[in-house]
Amino acid sequence: PRGWLWILKGPGEAQFPQELIDRLSHSEIHSISDLQRLLDIDSVGKFRLSILRAIDKPGHVFTPRPSQLHSRRKRSIVEEAVPAVCKTRTVIYEIPRSQVDPTSANFLIWPPCVEVKRCTGCCNTSNMRCHPSRKYHRTVKVAKVEYVKRKPKLKEVFVRLEDHLECVCTSQHHVVEEETKMRCQRCFFPKDSNQ
Amino acid sequence: PRGWLWILKGPGEAQFPQELIDRLSHSEIHSISDLQRLLDIDSVGKFRLSILRAIDKPGHVFTPRPSQLHSRRKRSIVEEAVPAVCKTRTVIYEIPRSQVDPTSANFLIWPPCVEVKRCTGCCNTSNMRCHPSRKYHRTVKVAKVEYVKRKPKLKEVFVRLEDHLECVCTSQHHVVEEETKMRCQRCFFPKDSNQ
Repeated sequence: PRGWLWILKGPGEAQFPQELIDRLSHSEIHSISDLQRLLDIDSVGKFRLSILRAIDKPGHVFTPRPSQLHSRRKRSIVEEAVPAVCKTRTVIYEIPRSQVDPTSANFLIWPPCVEVKRCTGCCNTSNMRCHPSRKYHRTVKVAKVEYVKRKPKLKEVFVRLEDHLECVCTSQHHVVEEETKMRCQRCFFPKDSNQ
Repeated sequence: PRGWLWILKGPGEAQFPQELIDRLSHSEIHSISDLQRLLDIDSVGKFRLSILRAIDKPGHVFTPRPSQLHSRRKRSIVEEAVPAVCKTRTVIYEIPRSQVDPTSANFLIWPPCVEVKRCTGCCNTSNMRCHPSRKYHRTVKVAKVEYVKRKPKLKEVFVRLEDHLECVCTSQHHVVEEETKMRCQRCFFPKDSNQ
């Protein structure tokens, strides 16, 4: 079925042979030269000739402003993009109001957001997803401030946070399967559904 | 008008006096005690009595699982949430396919995403927003891989990235005004619209 193929091969990858996608998915690629070498295996000799600089063939590809890149010398300054590899990074978690009090609307939460560690970044191909392989849960105190009878009132409320400890590039198909399993568990045990 | 008030006072803050919101917005609050002290000024004496621990009044507030917090001793282990202050952090920027080639769909981008610095985190109240006060633009090379006539073909494409250098908590109203101005400029100079 089409949907299945899309999961196996992500957007833009339909024309590529599965074997090539698999090789890209499971290789460590640190630079464009690495990628080039990896692709070269399939197209010895002729391939190197097909490396065209976008700047020599402007048009449909992004062209830097003349002020930024007006000379051949300046071109070489443009650095190669460094891949944002799949790993844990600090991200912002906004404390959900529903987790503090789902029955009322008139309160402030302090702090409104905290730092958590989450798996972010990309895998080589879009059929793979950066996914946590190990998680950790912790509980923190936040302040819930209400304004009752012209007085501020403060309560300490406990909020559960999820941190990711280790990440792995997994095939989208695998992740979808895992998430369906998780959702199914939640149908029977519907807790922490907003984390 | 209502919309204006909402901008001045964020969700959940409607009942609070504007003076109190302003004081919270413009103070440095590092802990719940700081917040308590700040609120105390308005409600000397009686206020301290109103500090109730959520754990003593369970019900509509989040209650930790008994396994996590079963004794009075364990309660004190729960740490106070550390605010995720408004500052630059590393975030992931997925290279937009449209920036590499808006006319074609059959290509891969490598790397698919890169790290950029962006202003993230929260301000004390939701009427304030963490906003960049200084930005920096840089151009990087990425690889566009196509599969033409059974051969992979690689092009180098230039992509413009935006980093934030400094952040500031600004009132939402101010940000909305600035963004409207920006959008207006883009009507006449519609470039970099997807960044």
